[in-house]
Amino acid sequence: MEINPNTIPYASTYKLLTGSVVPRPIGWVSSLNAEGQPNLAPFSYFTVVCANPPTVLFCPGYRKADREPKDTLKNVRATGEFVLNIVTEDTANAMNISATELPADVNEFALANLTPTPSQKVAPPRVEESPIHFECKVTQIIDINEGPGGGSIVLGQVVHMHVREDLLIGSDKIDISKLKPIGRLAGGGYTRVTDLFEMSRLPSQIRPIS
Amino acid sequence: MEINPNTIPYASTYKLLTGSVVPRPIGWVSSLNAEGQPNLAPFSYFTVVCANPPTVLFCPGYRKADREPKDTLKNVRATGEFVLNIVTEDTANAMNISATELPADVNEFALANLTPTPSQKVAPPRVEESPIHFECKVTQIIDINEGPGGGSIVLGQVVHMHVREDLLIGSDKIDISKLKPIGRLAGGGYTRVTDLFEMSRLPSQIRPIS
Repeated sequence: MEINPNTIPYASTYKLLTGSVVPRPIGWVSSLNAEGQPNLAPFSYFTVVCANPPTVLFCPGYRKADREPKDTLKNVRATGEFVLNIVTEDTANAMNISATELPADVNEFALANLTPTPSQKVAPPRVEESPIHFECKVTQIIDINEGPGGGSIVLGQVVHMHVREDLLIGSDKIDISKLKPIGRLAGGGYTRVTDLFEMSRLPSQIRPIS
Repeated sequence: MEINPNTIPYASTYKLLTGSVVPRPIGWVSSLNAEGQPNLAPFSYFTVVCANPPTVLFCPGYRKADREPKDTLKNVRATGEFVLNIVTEDTANAMNISATELPADVNEFALANLTPTPSQKVAPPRVEESPIHFECKVTQIIDINEGPGGGSIVLGQVVHMHVREDLLIGSDKIDISKLKPIGRLAGGGYTRVTDLFEMSRLPSQIRPIS
């Protein structure tokens, strides 16, 4: 099937991209608005950029023509800070509740029965029920398109990390079988991370058979 | 465990980020250098940005102090084009072979026994064995840090898509059970996408119990 994305509705392009780029990690972003009201929302257009300086990004989207930017984007623009909370099987349901489109004055922590707990170096609270938190300062926001189907890229530098002790093997290896993360697919689909396999990187001296 | 990333080696920060932001989709990027030599390499710091215009990004990293940028980054800078090929269970081993660090003159297509097939709107070939390809034009490259542990962000606009017919349900829904993607974890770890569940987005009129 040959598809020219310029000739189909952007909602179809969205489905094709979201169904193909899978499984996606979920960044559960807590932020504060200028008045100090907390917000919590999940983003699966989310990845690491690099380790030095430790940099992550997530991409809030614009879903409808008549909507303002998502609360999270307004908040990180206003305050320059956010926390990335890692979503696990245990918090999947609460994450889904926090994904509901709600008026800005609704506190998703209360709605999803989650516990806000203070951060060390930024103002937004962490989700106590998450086993890993990255406290982040915004370094750059790139607006690709602020119209329907568009999105922005929020780049953040990780200034502090919290990792629940029992997840660590040594000082820096995360035990995936204890973390129990979930991955986002298209629509309402998710995957557990249980059907694992290993592949070793091949030695660099390998050469093609000529 | 409280971790200040400024006080640990960046290699440890890398492990913590890569072990926490999971599972990651894999963008298998084919590109050409200025002389037309093909290159193929996988990137799991990879996500969708938005659907309008259809935009994706991946983040090539710098692993060692003495190395030049990865071939892929040099190529997309020189030519402004790449193809994102989707990795599946069937192509996992070939993807792993293509991840080997190799001299720039080694053709990963030949090394991994893959078939380059012409694209429609860009010069780099697609991987025929991949069931989905996004042909992309580079729109922006953001260099976060070109030193050790650093990375860049390559933004591309999808100008053409190929989706194998049998994967489509209707015109735009990808059948995950037929796609059989794999997700990247830390180290040599991967996950199949088989342990699935669904959660419906809640109605937006839901309010917290006060």
